[in-house]
Amino acid sequence: MRTPPSLVSLAIDSALAQLSNISDLSFLPDHILIDLFLSQWSILKFEYLSGENSAGEAPCGIFKLPVEGFLKRTLRAGKLTEKILKLFIATGKEEVLSHIEALNIQLVLTPVLPTSKKNLSMSQIIDDNDVDIVIGALHSDLTPFLDEWRPVFSRFHLIIVKDPDLKDELKIPGGFNLHVYTKSDIDKAVGSASSASLFSGYSCRYFGYLISQKKYVVSIDDDCVPARDNNGGLIDAVAQHISNLTTPATPFFFNTLYDPFCKGADFVRGYPFSLRNGVTCALSCGLWLNLADYDAPTQALKPGQRNSRYVDAVLTVPARTMLPVSGINIGFNREVVGPALLPALRLAKEGKFRWETVEDIWSGMCVKVVCDHLGVGVKSGLPYVWRKERGDAIESLKKEWEGVKLMEDVVPFFQSVRLSQAAVTPEDCVIEMAAAVKERLGPVHPVFARAAEAMVEWVKLWKVVRTRLSP
Amino acid sequence: MRTPPSLVSLAIDSALAQLSNISDLSFLPDHILIDLFLSQWSILKFEYLSGENSAGEAPCGIFKLPVEGFLKRTLRAGKLTEKILKLFIATGKEEVLSHIEALNIQLVLTPVLPTSKKNLSMSQIIDDNDVDIVIGALHSDLTPFLDEWRPVFSRFHLIIVKDPDLKDELKIPGGFNLHVYTKSDIDKAVGSASSASLFSGYSCRYFGYLISQKKYVVSIDDDCVPARDNNGGLIDAVAQHISNLTTPATPFFFNTLYDPFCKGADFVRGYPFSLRNGVTCALSCGLWLNLADYDAPTQALKPGQRNSRYVDAVLTVPARTMLPVSGINIGFNREVVGPALLPALRLAKEGKFRWETVEDIWSGMCVKVVCDHLGVGVKSGLPYVWRKERGDAIESLKKEWEGVKLMEDVVPFFQSVRLSQAAVTPEDCVIEMAAAVKERLGPVHPVFARAAEAMVEWVKLWKVVRTRLSP
Repeated sequence: MRTPPSLVSLAIDSALAQLSNISDLSFLPDHILIDLFLSQWSILKFEYLSGENSAGEAPCGIFKLPVEGFLKRTLRAGKLTEKILKLFIATGKEEVLSHIEALNIQLVLTPVLPTSKKNLSMSQIIDDNDVDIVIGALHSDLTPFLDEWRPVFSRFHLIIVKDPDLKDELKIPGGFNLHVYTKSDIDKAVGSASSASLFSGYSCRYFGYLISQKKYVVSIDDDCVPARDNNGGLIDAVAQHISNLTTPATPFFFNTLYDPFCKGADFVRGYPFSLRNGVTCALSCGLWLNLADYDAPTQALKPGQRNSRYVDAVLTVPARTMLPVSGINIGFNREVVGPALLPALRLAKEGKFRWETVEDIWSGMCVKVVCDHLGVGVKSGLPYVWRKERGDAIESLKKEWEGVKLMEDVVPFFQSVRLSQAAVTPEDCVIEMAAAVKERLGPVHPVFARAAEAMVEWVKLWKVVRTRLSP
Repeated sequence: MRTPPSLVSLAIDSALAQLSNISDLSFLPDHILIDLFLSQWSILKFEYLSGENSAGEAPCGIFKLPVEGFLKRTLRAGKLTEKILKLFIATGKEEVLSHIEALNIQLVLTPVLPTSKKNLSMSQIIDDNDVDIVIGALHSDLTPFLDEWRPVFSRFHLIIVKDPDLKDELKIPGGFNLHVYTKSDIDKAVGSASSASLFSGYSCRYFGYLISQKKYVVSIDDDCVPARDNNGGLIDAVAQHISNLTTPATPFFFNTLYDPFCKGADFVRGYPFSLRNGVTCALSCGLWLNLADYDAPTQALKPGQRNSRYVDAVLTVPARTMLPVSGINIGFNREVVGPALLPALRLAKEGKFRWETVEDIWSGMCVKVVCDHLGVGVKSGLPYVWRKERGDAIESLKKEWEGVKLMEDVVPFFQSVRLSQAAVTPEDCVIEMAAAVKERLGPVHPVFARAAEAMVEWVKLWKVVRTRLSP
């Protein structure tokens, strides 16, 4: 129930009618400006929230032309103050938002206005051509895998990289837009010495990351199929990764209702408004139903354990918090952090099962340190994929034990490593980190010295290949 | 499928038969010890995991008497090495675990053995007498509230604290074991000056925290009723808080499958074994379905928004990550962090709606800093409660605006404040923090100077009351 109109509210009503003629609102005291905004919302919010406005428009019908014209004129006159910008962001009007985005206007201050996340997701529309699906083929018959993923993958370009150790011909069903890369392609691109040491086994997918020319990369292991949500619906893992990557991450304060940019969620009471814009999300780490990504000892100890808990959430992993990134099901913004996803830590007895590898764990901590340093975010949670059974964990134990032990040195290292202000690109960051690995972990175990070398080699390779691929 | 027995495995089988006669296993090389352990598990695991052992025993049938006797003798002889302790913890045998707990043996090293969380939860059985339910009564008629909570609350002792500003008599239904505290009780305990300034409105619950003599406190707002999970089952919020508090927290590394101590979950690949024991969980922050805990601007902007997303997860909020703790639905270990939950930040125009307060947000950041300093953990997630409708957020906006603005200073302060090594109790921590608040935030706004004073006053009060209550 609203109170009867006050003098102020009547003045505001009058101001609203004149909005198209006002070229600067900054002379208004804060509380009037806020009242102006809220009065408007209190009239229109029901239409907005009840979804009656079926066109999906933000509830700005009466602002429609004036606001847009006003914004253009204000920008031309150089009079766009922080207050006015916030006012316009708060309108939630798609056209306005796209102008703000097109002009690359950033709000770097403390906007004391509620979020209207509708804008943030609607202003980010992904072109299928912005996405590469990278599949590392560790099995020769990809038919069942690709047939299961067909409804999700067929819109996108696929990069299939055949494990150089795999001898059989790949079997690939028709109907996909894809490129297949084999050992000879890898050798041609990077030389046969590098190909064997960098790209064998699960690491073959990194070759796909290297040659992708798209903004976003999504990569899923070839023993996973689409999962279903609690309502039985097929999960479009690619759409969810892209949604995670195109909505902001919030690494500097924890939101108890998880990702505030998910539908139906928001920032909770106490969340600073200055942090509600968030930052670019660079990495999206998905999860697994059925066979979870446990290490060999856990898998051996609990061979019957299956993950059936569908947790309907995405969250930003806070800054300076390390996590074990699994390579099974990830998406990332290649333009922002591509060079930081790298094949570096290879166990002496590394095999062809996930639990016999730690390459992705190492790569994940590298990329998390890089994200923290560059001020971008990492999300974890949805989407799930369904992991199928294979391998005998007990047989893997002797190999994996080494990886498990290495973590005791790896984690404290990445928790404490800090990069210099001079490192402003992911390539810079990786080179600095490689030096720190060599210095601090090199003496601990030879596998770390080799990892440091591989990181340096990777950045060289990245630069060469990027130069070659650039138009 | 197991491979045929090797010489080692035959030797192990023989060793197992002799276990009751072996007083020290530490002479065995690591890999034999581990094989010993794993061989045992590979025989018994199916019984364990398939649940065929309906008595709920850990799969230690053949260990049963020998192990227990062995542990006792080993302890008496002072020969309990780290390796043996790990071996015994890994057996998952309840009796053994309870001995280990009773003797307060702590594992502070790097146990390279898989988790067996069953033990950790089963070894922690809560006595109803360890729990106080603290309810701040802001409404005089508690009948509907208590009737709805009867199935959950009736086992426990209730402390009901009547808001000193509330004039009407409380209406309380029968059938509960409870104590009611009113303004005169508060005045008697702390003096009438303190009672008005510290314990009015939502802050009245802190009086309950002050006088509770139980290990655990659970507190839920009087406008909430039990929620239902995705399957329609009534959520026992108290049981979930106690489960969160009695299983370890893992603040030093993020587990992508959320709380590894939840049923069906575990630590994922790459999680360092040295961190899998976790630390004591001191605070459990629950969530809300229906009306979420948004601030007044968000609530005003989206009056129709309701939280219907039941996220079936609990997670540890990482160390050094701040979060907005809501006082609506929490549980905590009073013995570990009681004095750090305190009424300190009071807005000039603080009202009787949650979105008009920030006392809990402030208190929550205090307790998070204390937890990080003391090396204990904070969890967030389950349980949910169902928040009912009340209040007009738009009317609250003028009051709340102040709180929203204060967060811009509050959050950076708590993110950066560090306590000295001399602070070893929560009381010490609060006193140090109060000094930092006075110095760094005092000049910013008078409300912070008052908060610093209230923190000092609270610790004095805590000490006086604890001394008076101690047997």
